[in-house]
Amino acid sequence: MTLAPRPLSLEVAIAFVDRTVSRLPAESASVSSLCRRVVAESIHATRAIPAADRALIDGYAVAASATVGAGSYNPLLLPLRAISAGDAIPPGTDAVIPLDLGLTHPSGVVECIEAVAPNQNVEIRGCVAAPAALLASEGTRLLPAQIAVLISAGLASVKVIRRPLVRIVLASEPSATDSDGPMCRALVERDGGVVVNTLAAGRTRQAIRGALETEGVDIVLVIGGTGPGVGDHAAAALAEVGDLAIHGIALRPGETAGLGHTRNAVPVILLPGAPAACLFAYEMLAGRAIRRLGGLDPAPPYRSRGMLTARKIVSAIGMTEICPVRFTTSDAVEPLPSFGEIGLMAAAAADGFVIVPEEREGYPPGAPVTVYLYDGNCIGGL
Amino acid sequence: MTLAPRPLSLEVAIAFVDRTVSRLPAESASVSSLCRRVVAESIHATRAIPAADRALIDGYAVAASATVGAGSYNPLLLPLRAISAGDAIPPGTDAVIPLDLGLTHPSGVVECIEAVAPNQNVEIRGCVAAPAALLASEGTRLLPAQIAVLISAGLASVKVIRRPLVRIVLASEPSATDSDGPMCRALVERDGGVVVNTLAAGRTRQAIRGALETEGVDIVLVIGGTGPGVGDHAAAALAEVGDLAIHGIALRPGETAGLGHTRNAVPVILLPGAPAACLFAYEMLAGRAIRRLGGLDPAPPYRSRGMLTARKIVSAIGMTEICPVRFTTSDAVEPLPSFGEIGLMAAAAADGFVIVPEEREGYPPGAPVTVYLYDGNCIGGL
Repeated sequence: MTLAPRPLSLEVAIAFVDRTVSRLPAESASVSSLCRRVVAESIHATRAIPAADRALIDGYAVAASATVGAGSYNPLLLPLRAISAGDAIPPGTDAVIPLDLGLTHPSGVVECIEAVAPNQNVEIRGCVAAPAALLASEGTRLLPAQIAVLISAGLASVKVIRRPLVRIVLASEPSATDSDGPMCRALVERDGGVVVNTLAAGRTRQAIRGALETEGVDIVLVIGGTGPGVGDHAAAALAEVGDLAIHGIALRPGETAGLGHTRNAVPVILLPGAPAACLFAYEMLAGRAIRRLGGLDPAPPYRSRGMLTARKIVSAIGMTEICPVRFTTSDAVEPLPSFGEIGLMAAAAADGFVIVPEEREGYPPGAPVTVYLYDGNCIGGL
Repeated sequence: MTLAPRPLSLEVAIAFVDRTVSRLPAESASVSSLCRRVVAESIHATRAIPAADRALIDGYAVAASATVGAGSYNPLLLPLRAISAGDAIPPGTDAVIPLDLGLTHPSGVVECIEAVAPNQNVEIRGCVAAPAALLASEGTRLLPAQIAVLISAGLASVKVIRRPLVRIVLASEPSATDSDGPMCRALVERDGGVVVNTLAAGRTRQAIRGALETEGVDIVLVIGGTGPGVGDHAAAALAEVGDLAIHGIALRPGETAGLGHTRNAVPVILLPGAPAACLFAYEMLAGRAIRRLGGLDPAPPYRSRGMLTARKIVSAIGMTEICPVRFTTSDAVEPLPSFGEIGLMAAAAADGFVIVPEEREGYPPGAPVTVYLYDGNCIGGL
């Protein structure tokens, strides 16, 4: 299997992913297990929240009109009923007196020493959400507070997009120090997928074919064996038992990546075995496919920022190049030694990366560039 | 149990957390399970990476000096050895000719049709990392690419900070729609902790005391029962079986929060039961403690940004107030109805929040403010 003489542009490869990979169907999930799940259909309140007027604080329920004139020099003996925060307001009352403004007599009677207004310290029916109010939009990746809102709304389960099930196939020489498998597993989890199995097929075309013929997953990542060498069988195996649509992409690192489908139309991404190439072929193509399957924004999950180049960035024309950079000032970056030179250390040591499009030979000093940030607080960085 | 007449400032409560909660000890973790783990001691390379000169591409190993003068009009018959990317460079060779520049004769001999320079297409010993080079600093929360670097360095396990073990105690009226428990569980997971059990103690002082006397966790979160009502037993229970250091904090929402320790010096955070108060007492105090235990940056894990107020923000003097806001333009925000008015819907509907310090009565229109962003890409938002 030889690579195409001219690799396809990354844009064409991305368009292929976008055209052929679509969102998985919905499933029901219990409200207690919704963290990071993606809402499949917008969720609306089925009733008012709260369903009744409720006390906002601990205190005494009262009819506000009966408290007019009350004060510490004019305590009023009133029919006050003790009430806890969250309790429904009893009929005939419309306000809550805080505990410290109702004095308990030795006799057990309660005196009111401050007037309250109607609805004071009361959470009014429907103030959180009116019936049919939007609680969470389709496509939202649920935050802890949003989960609590859904539980408060009385929902027991919610329609969420099924999590993408991922198979990883290792098609390189078996090695005690395979770093691609654990790295891709961590990236899949970041992108909302679940790695259901990792098959060590090695440099055996038969075994790779077998891994591509087994069902039960939503996408297959084949790692290694994508090059033109005699032990590289990933592309040939896919061509034999499915469809090898693209092999060879103008992406550096990541040139020997490929895309296709199994016989049953399950997407297959061929990732190079060299670690930096594996990482960026994952980031640009495999991660995009997994995020699309799971209903997430398909763009790489990094925060980006417009900055300036402090030094020249060099890149080959005709190749989309990923250039690791570090900050020199708060708004400028300089290139680090490239992935070709120091491999993954470029990612481990960088503050982020710049994507140099294929029509450019790089950037002169002082040029505006978009920097994708390795930001510890962002899931791209997780 | 009555609240202190004057609540303590949030700053004092935060200082108490910082003074009394410290990082957990280290443990060994396999390199295959390092995602999101925090490095306990800086990790250095024990040997050069790579350990030997290696081929960067598939091709033919050659002595560069022997290729001088080679070209398509002057092919040289050379002793070329097929080599795969990642293989060690054989003795006597120092460069790799790409597959397409070595023509295989029908006789099986390989012809070189382009000269190569010494070290061309070779990854030099130690170029990724010299012996003793820093691979990951103490306190780093490991990214997928960093995990791959550690595996490439031949490490089998790494010292990481132990994950904080968390007990959640529900001290409110048992309810089918408890939203605080699942919300806090999701927040604990975001902050790197593990909820080992959730005990429904209800409004029973005896049961709360029991939950505070059981060992085996690094921190206890008591949810609900923090108010001054007759069914509120959280603070009294803690005072009886441990140390109630602070009860009542000038934080809105979150005024009835408390802090202390069990008899065995395990930190205890009392969180109000009202959902918005629970959320922000968690964010300001409990999350801080859990992040400190786990060796993470203790600050709330939200990206912040300087913006302007498009409308006035109102706040009570003497109280640190959390004000939910939404964007009006790309650099301005306006307040939403407050947590007091619409509860957690304020968090679910907001783009972020502003923390109004206790010495301020709010902000006039056009004032500069720091906005903490509910950013889908950030773990604060997860």
